Amino acid sequence: MLISSRENPIIKETAALVKSAAARRESRSYLAEGLRLCYDAVVSGVRPRRCFITKEADERWPAECAAIRGASFESCEIPPSVAEKLSDTVSTQGVFAVCDLPENVFSAGEDGLYVVLAGLQDPGNVGTILRTCEAMAVSGVLLCGCADEWSPKVLRASMGSLFRLRTSVFPDGFAALEALSAAGCETWASALDRDAVKLPEARFSAKCAIFIGNEGAGLPEELIKACSRTVFIPMPGRAESLNAASAAAMLIYQWSAGRC
Amino acid sequence: MLISSRENPIIKETAALVKSAAARRESRSYLAEGLRLCYDAVVSGVRPRRCFITKEADERWPAECAAIRGASFESCEIPPSVAEKLSDTVSTQGVFAVCDLPENVFSAGEDGLYVVLAGLQDPGNVGTILRTCEAMAVSGVLLCGCADEWSPKVLRASMGSLFRLRTSVFPDGFAALEALSAAGCETWASALDRDAVKLPEARFSAKCAIFIGNEGAGLPEELIKACSRTVFIPMPGRAESLNAASAAAMLIYQWSAGRC
Repeated sequence: MLISSRENPIIKETAALVKSAAARRESRSYLAEGLRLCYDAVVSGVRPRRCFITKEADERWPAECAAIRGASFESCEIPPSVAEKLSDTVSTQGVFAVCDLPENVFSAGEDGLYVVLAGLQDPGNVGTILRTCEAMAVSGVLLCGCADEWSPKVLRASMGSLFRLRTSVFPDGFAALEALSAAGCETWASALDRDAVKLPEARFSAKCAIFIGNEGAGLPEELIKACSRTVFIPMPGRAESLNAASAAAMLIYQWSAGRC
Repeated sequence: MLISSRENPIIKETAALVKSAAARRESRSYLAEGLRLCYDAVVSGVRPRRCFITKEADERWPAECAAIRGASFESCEIPPSVAEKLSDTVSTQGVFAVCDLPENVFSAGEDGLYVVLAGLQDPGNVGTILRTCEAMAVSGVLLCGCADEWSPKVLRASMGSLFRLRTSVFPDGFAALEALSAAGCETWASALDRDAVKLPEARFSAKCAIFIGNEGAGLPEELIKACSRTVFIPMPGRAESLNAASAAAMLIYQWSAGRC
């Protein structure tokens, strides 16, 4: 199918998925953009509802585009002007896929690490942490009041790890804590508290969760108290300040290093 | 002094510092933007050549603005229209300071960790790593062919740590390696090499340097060979992929944890 008008209703509907979390929720779908991300999606077993590919992209990356088209229920050719309308980037590659939002199912049956992100607002941080979680084989990620994981910026920063990670969404950190405790998880709050367990000395149990808070405010005090333990990252420098994704990297690394 | 025109030559010259590394090098100065960053600069001992503050900012944050003005050799009041011209952000706070570029002096006299960034292109990554370096009390950062540390995006992501860190610029990683070796530093290359030392098992000496490479390509093969050791971060997950700033966080954390 060829769609050549930017005013086509399918294009308008698809463009809304880029801008609005409400549109994504309502249609139960999101838009992946870029050759690498769309190809990653189909290789990871995602079957897009519909893909949009420009002739230029098809000529440049024939094998990958054929794979994306082959996995999609419907495929559309679009001109560069329509690609620009769908794009969230400065210079688009002209490759897009509308994919189903996965079911929001939580399970903490297996041993491993569960990472809880509570109130993280920066999409780059959320995506970067998801990428770290996949690389370090985290068992599940619980998102509580964070930047929408299916927004274009989070998807991009996650480098496709969202297609392979188990994520679930909770209204807040307390709801996540309840679910994790019910599943027999040890729960660790990370906080700037010098009386807490120092990260290099933390002994995480086989099934545990680490809670990571908002960029500026950290975790709410009551949530910290409600967790079984509190851990802090010793910072010998002058400013006690780490980017949230960097702090998450250290926490997840320490857990992983203890398993080597 | 009141400057009310966007076409004023001082404003044009200052706006160039935001956009162009060449303009920064030529004038030996950079522009800090934002209340927090400018205040951080003067509290850290920076004496701006000139500050620009809107009346609105002055009324909102009188104490901080007075401190910034007091530390500056010259201060200008500007209207919001001029603030917008100087700004690199979507909604500016109306507080700016033109500061001297520090001298590019390298020294690795003391024991500690030296972090070498070779070819990092993303300003957010460079700034985030600088922030981690300050928090973990790294002794020096060597920048080799990276995004310009004094660009607005790096400054912002570094959260002011640039004002307190010792950084130096080298044309490439080999020049940095030579300087570090001459100073008696042990040099570690970080690489995706499963035969290298696993990070949790790395025993860093009291004076050592860790080399971190480009986001996509990593470190050049010859540079890895020229370093005394190679370290890799074990990634048990499916995709072997970490954001450069997250990898740096793990490397620097492991070094710091060994010192606890």
